Amino acid sequence: MRREDAADRLFDAFVASELTVAELAEGIDHDPVWTAGVLHGAVSTTRAEAETLTERLEIGSDPLVRALCRAPEKGQRPLEIPSDPMLYRLFEIPAVYGDALKTVIHEKFGDGIMSAIDFECHVERIETEDGADRVRITYEGAFLPYRRW
Amino acid sequence: MRREDAADRLFDAFVASELTVAELAEGIDHDPVWTAGVLHGAVSTTRAEAETLTERLEIGSDPLVRALCRAPEKGQRPLEIPSDPMLYRLFEIPAVYGDALKTVIHEKFGDGIMSAIDFECHVERIETEDGADRVRITYEGAFLPYRRW
Amino acid sequence: MRREDAADRLFDAFVASELTVAELAEGIDHDPVWTAGVLHGAVSTTRAEAETLTERLEIGSDPLVRALCRAPEKGQRPLEIPSDPMLYRLFEIPAVYGDALKTVIHEKFGDGIMSAIDFECHVERIETEDGADRVRITYEGAFLPYRRW
Amino acid sequence: MRREDAADRLFDAFVASELTVAELAEGIDHDPVWTAGVLHGAVSTTRAEAETLTERLEIGSDPLVRALCRAPEKGQRPLEIPSDPMLYRLFEIPAVYGDALKTVIHEKFGDGIMSAIDFECHVERIETEDGADRVRITYEGAFLPYRRW
Amino acid sequence: MRREDAADRLFDAFVASELTVAELAEGIDHDPVWTAGVLHGAVSTTRAEAETLTERLEIGSDPLVRALCRAPEKGQRPLEIPSDPMLYRLFEIPAVYGDALKTVIHEKFGDGIMSAIDFECHVERIETEDGADRVRITYEGAFLPYRRW
Amino acid sequence: MRREDAADRLFDAFVASELTVAELAEGIDHDPVWTAGVLHGAVSTTRAEAETLTERLEIGSDPLVRALCRAPEKGQRPLEIPSDPMLYRLFEIPAVYGDALKTVIHEKFGDGIMSAIDFECHVERIETEDGADRVRITYEGAFLPYRRW
Amino acid sequence: MRREDAADRLFDAFVASELTVAELAEGIDHDPVWTAGVLHGAVSTTRAEAETLTERLEIGSDPLVRALCRAPEKGQRPLEIPSDPMLYRLFEIPAVYGDALKTVIHEKFGDGIMSAIDFECHVERIETEDGADRVRITYEGAFLPYRRW
Amino acid sequence: MRREDAADRLFDAFVASELTVAELAEGIDHDPVWTAGVLHGAVSTTRAEAETLTERLEIGSDPLVRALCRAPEKGQRPLEIPSDPMLYRLFEIPAVYGDALKTVIHEKFGDGIMSAIDFECHVERIETEDGADRVRITYEGAFLPYRRW
Amino acid sequence: MRREDAADRLFDAFVASELTVAELAEGIDHDPVWTAGVLHGAVSTTRAEAETLTERLEIGSDPLVRALCRAPEKGQRPLEIPSDPMLYRLFEIPAVYGDALKTVIHEKFGDGIMSAIDFECHVERIETEDGADRVRITYEGAFLPYRRW
Amino acid sequence: MRREDAADRLFDAFVASELTVAELAEGIDHDPVWTAGVLHGAVSTTRAEAETLTERLEIGSDPLVRALCRAPEKGQRPLEIPSDPMLYRLFEIPAVYGDALKTVIHEKFGDGIMSAIDFECHVERIETEDGADRVRITYEGAFLPYRRW
Repeated sequence: MRREDAADRLFDAFVASELTVAELAEGIDHDPVWTAGVLHGAVSTTRAEAETLTERLEIGSDPLVRALCRAPEKGQRPLEIPSDPMLYRLFEIPAVYGDALKTVIHEKFGDGIMSAIDFECHVERIETEDGADRVRITYEGAFLPYRRW
Repeated sequence: MRREDAADRLFDAFVASELTVAELAEGIDHDPVWTAGVLHGAVSTTRAEAETLTERLEIGSDPLVRALCRAPEKGQRPLEIPSDPMLYRLFEIPAVYGDALKTVIHEKFGDGIMSAIDFECHVERIETEDGADRVRITYEGAFLPYRRW
Repeated sequence: MRREDAADRLFDAFVASELTVAELAEGIDHDPVWTAGVLHGAVSTTRAEAETLTERLEIGSDPLVRALCRAPEKGQRPLEIPSDPMLYRLFEIPAVYGDALKTVIHEKFGDGIMSAIDFECHVERIETEDGADRVRITYEGAFLPYRRW
Repeated sequence: MRREDAADRLFDAFVASELTVAELAEGIDHDPVWTAGVLHGAVSTTRAEAETLTERLEIGSDPLVRALCRAPEKGQRPLEIPSDPMLYRLFEIPAVYGDALKTVIHEKFGDGIMSAIDFECHVERIETEDGADRVRITYEGAFLPYRRW
Repeated sequence: MRREDAADRLFDAFVASELTVAELAEGIDHDPVWTAGVLHGAVSTTRAEAETLTERLEIGSDPLVRALCRAPEKGQRPLEIPSDPMLYRLFEIPAVYGDALKTVIHEKFGDGIMSAIDFECHVERIETEDGADRVRITYEGAFLPYRRW
Repeated sequence: MRREDAADRLFDAFVASELTVAELAEGIDHDPVWTAGVLHGAVSTTRAEAETLTERLEIGSDPLVRALCRAPEKGQRPLEIPSDPMLYRLFEIPAVYGDALKTVIHEKFGDGIMSAIDFECHVERIETEDGADRVRITYEGAFLPYRRW
Repeated sequence: MRREDAADRLFDAFVASELTVAELAEGIDHDPVWTAGVLHGAVSTTRAEAETLTERLEIGSDPLVRALCRAPEKGQRPLEIPSDPMLYRLFEIPAVYGDALKTVIHEKFGDGIMSAIDFECHVERIETEDGADRVRITYEGAFLPYRRW
Repeated sequence: MRREDAADRLFDAFVASELTVAELAEGIDHDPVWTAGVLHGAVSTTRAEAETLTERLEIGSDPLVRALCRAPEKGQRPLEIPSDPMLYRLFEIPAVYGDALKTVIHEKFGDGIMSAIDFECHVERIETEDGADRVRITYEGAFLPYRRW
Repeated sequence: MRREDAADRLFDAFVASELTVAELAEGIDHDPVWTAGVLHGAVSTTRAEAETLTERLEIGSDPLVRALCRAPEKGQRPLEIPSDPMLYRLFEIPAVYGDALKTVIHEKFGDGIMSAIDFECHVERIETEDGADRVRITYEGAFLPYRRW
Repeated sequence: MRREDAADRLFDAFVASELTVAELAEGIDHDPVWTAGVLHGAVSTTRAEAETLTERLEIGSDPLVRALCRAPEKGQRPLEIPSDPMLYRLFEIPAVYGDALKTVIHEKFGDGIMSAIDFECHVERIETEDGADRVRITYEGAFLPYRRW
């Protein structure tokens, strides 16, 4: 079974299960964002995690479990700006504030980058007094200085 | 004076001044990322802020001050994935984790988006014990539910 | 059932039904544009609305109803200018008058945007005396000022 | 003088004048959006209008007046989705609701399009009770049925 | 039945029939170009025309007839220059002579466009004495002056 | 002098001269479209024509005349769909009717193309009784059958 | 049967037959490149040729024969630079030497082009003494001078 | 002096000199296509060749000579299909016949490519009896088999 | 059987076999990278190699073996930057260091290129003392000097 | 002084100096590829290195030295495949062998990437007996496993 077919099968079972991602995430002791990454085929799991997930969603099978452990082709969408408005905002932010973020990161850390691999991200709901709650997304990655040789 | 020329003049004066963005930001009581946004032409200022900044950088002039107060063309780069590695990582993250983030946001908030306008972002340096410090970028925006009519 | 398959099934049933969008819209007490948005997979419904629509089109089923309530991938077309002439005109207008509209909005409201989320749009037929009727499309969205931090 | 240079000169004089577009529009008895279109090089004027505008902005000259009367290259930006957030929203709306609008227009009018030439557009500020004012943009164009031959 | 499936079915029946487009066109009293437009899914028909065509091609069915009457998604190809040499020439001509045509049209008509909706086009074979016949394509559309408001 | 600089100089002199293209065309005994092609740098002239044109526009010089006789880089715009509405219509027409035109041309001529080189095009103003005049553009080129070898 | 399906069926039969293109070409008295063009759906055949080819490959059928005689959509790939290295070289050569070839052709022939329609091409194997054989591809087309009108 | 500026200076001097490429090529004992490649900045020369060319064109200078000897950025145009009709034909040919050429080359040589580096190309004028002369372009490059390791 | 279907079948059998590429490579005495190239349809094999591989993976069949020996369409992905992070890094490196590599290669070898055909590449795991192992990828290709003619 | 202007000034001085990159590299005790990266604006230097380089090239100035120490916008070219043949080969290799390299890296290291930041690359000339020397490029970067959270 190909890695992308495994993710599709997992996602369909997830929709049918009426579970939330948060409930699924608890079962494997991971963050909901990372767990949703499994459903969308963006991250690979250990064998034990794959077994737990497929059992929970009642689609356990050996080829499926094996496929979920393989390194996926991450970034399944073409390298393009997406038109879905929620996804688009994640690209609009660096289009507007990217140079500012880069300037501040270089000032705080020197010449290098925030890793997108040794990296994690989180979503929180921030309640405000006037009822207009806010979304907080945290990106956190290792700082990697440019090697000089 | 055009808005983009005003930003260019400000940025050149900033480089020549050898000030840090953090020092500049203190003077106008804003976050360094927002202040760097002024330098890169991404945000507009009040008249008082423009005067403070241009005086600090010793380039004060009335047309420059007026130009900094105009709404800029934000997103000055074309709507493309950039090749600079630090900027690229800000696009790679939603390319890999975007669907996962969207799924979790919908689960926590319902059908809608995180605003990129009623929005702020921050950069922090997270120190770790083994010396490999981490970059934390926080995106925080109002949740906007889709209007139904 | 995936969200996009649900929309396809709904649309096919709509074409077969020989109902108009306006008739369908009345049954759920929404505007025809919003209702057509359901048929094209652009908006999500409540459970009650999904049930009414699927019953009216005689395709009611529990998985279909559940799928229609999920947040869809909006903007299903790639982020490209379309070649269909009617759709193209909706892109040609901001290509020609976009800068003018932006300048006037900034003059009336300050630095910010018209929301496309807290937003509604309508189509009207304006009758004229010489028989050459006119199409009026109204876009109306909340003004969101840029946050400063 | 080339048409695009004429628009640039007009726009620079407008910024320097500290007039509003609305004030400028009154002097030539046109809508502010159309008048902003002159400033951005999107529309052509009569000789009388060009003279009024250039006198008001104190840059009157015969070659400038003649250039403003020439048909411009409209749509001065390349046929691309822009990254400026306000302009982007004008493209996001048809990306999300375009199919719905097309379906409703065809239902109301038959096979044809809304003209973007025999067309006008307006911006209004809609005040709401809770202080969160709304932007209303109206597109209105002749319906053109497809010719059959 | 979707509009594009209806066109595909019509086109396949046309190829199988060994009729010419000219023969088909006569039966519905339209130009061959317009009639070929029906086969390629570019134009919509009346109910009577759809019935005549489907009967002539021996594929008459009620859903097919209804689908042919719906407004199609015109411009079915993406908005790209095609690589087929005959189609390419139709794009090469305005790439080379477009500015010249625009200049002459503006000189003859003022600021506006030739409509591509209130429009018809024809193909003729022009015989020459030396046997090297020529293709003549005529584009004819209403002149639409830009509205001023 | 480069070929494109020669065209720019010619065009600027043409605008300054307040001559029409039609008047200019008479002087060299060519069609206005072809003559406008000279102004836009799309076609090359004979030495005699270049001399007549530059004298008429009062910019005659030997390097300019020589440059106008060189084969230009035709198709000076990048191979993209233009956003100017008049130019766009010339691309929208083959986007909608291109397949139909190709089918009819193949039926009338066999497998081959209409040449865009051994080619001419014309613009006419067609007066109609109701005052809504029409633009007629004629493309006429040699039919070139595909060589078989 | 659609033209592209006919080419696919022919190509599959060719691969299964273990014939060489050269052997196939002999049977219809054409060059191997032209004959390979038939297999790839780039050229149309006469009825006799289609019959010979389909009989030789043991897939003769009347609809297949008729489809092979229709003018194909040539240039089946999108108008893009291909990533296959052998195909890429055919695009790299004009990317590097295109301007040089154009300059020399204009010097030898005047303003015009080499036709790609009244055109043939050949592949030869040039043996060299040191065993490193060379590929020679010849493009030969009619010179078409630009028409002046 | 940068390599691209050197080519520009050489080309301008060539145009001013009224020499033909063929005359220039004789002086350095190279093919006219290769020599035109020098003028367009596509190939590098020896010191002696650079001296001969710059003396012939009366622009000899040491920095210019040194720049002409540097390896240029070849393929100065972006990796795009050009819109100039003569250049376009060089891309249309592999778009139509590329698969056929690849199939024949593989049949004659096995898995590998024609080199575009160990490569030369020529232009000839082929006279025909009926006066319609033909352009012959020859591409000839080493066959490079794929290495296996 | 088409070449790309053969690669798909091989790859699926490889995943099902739970063999490593390294084990597969040993059986045919090739490097693992080259062998993985067979699995991904990038390289062609000899008949003996195809037989060994298909027997090892228990899918041997004559058409499959024949297809694996055909020259594939290499570069199966479109000529685009990929969004998968591991693949992306292989494109980011020449985006950042490409000019530097080109300058050094020209200094060491003169005007020419590193062949990507007479070429091999390897992957090694470099162990370091602190446990953070490094990936070493070696590209090695023949230097091809530009031919002069 | 902007970072990109500093690199341009350095590169021009390097070309004028007739030094080799290798000679320049020795003076700052870095690899020639890294040193060429400084010349092309891809890497930042320490103050001491900037002083050594600018003195060696006889263009030392304080603003230039400061600019060379700033983090540059790396990846100065747009994120596109380049048309220069030497640069193109660096993109063709991952287009052909990228999937194979990714499969082998995952097999040797697990799910993660080779860093392009904690990374170095080298160029060597490999002499062979038959005189056809080979280019060896080594990419070496830290392996970064995907973080799980």
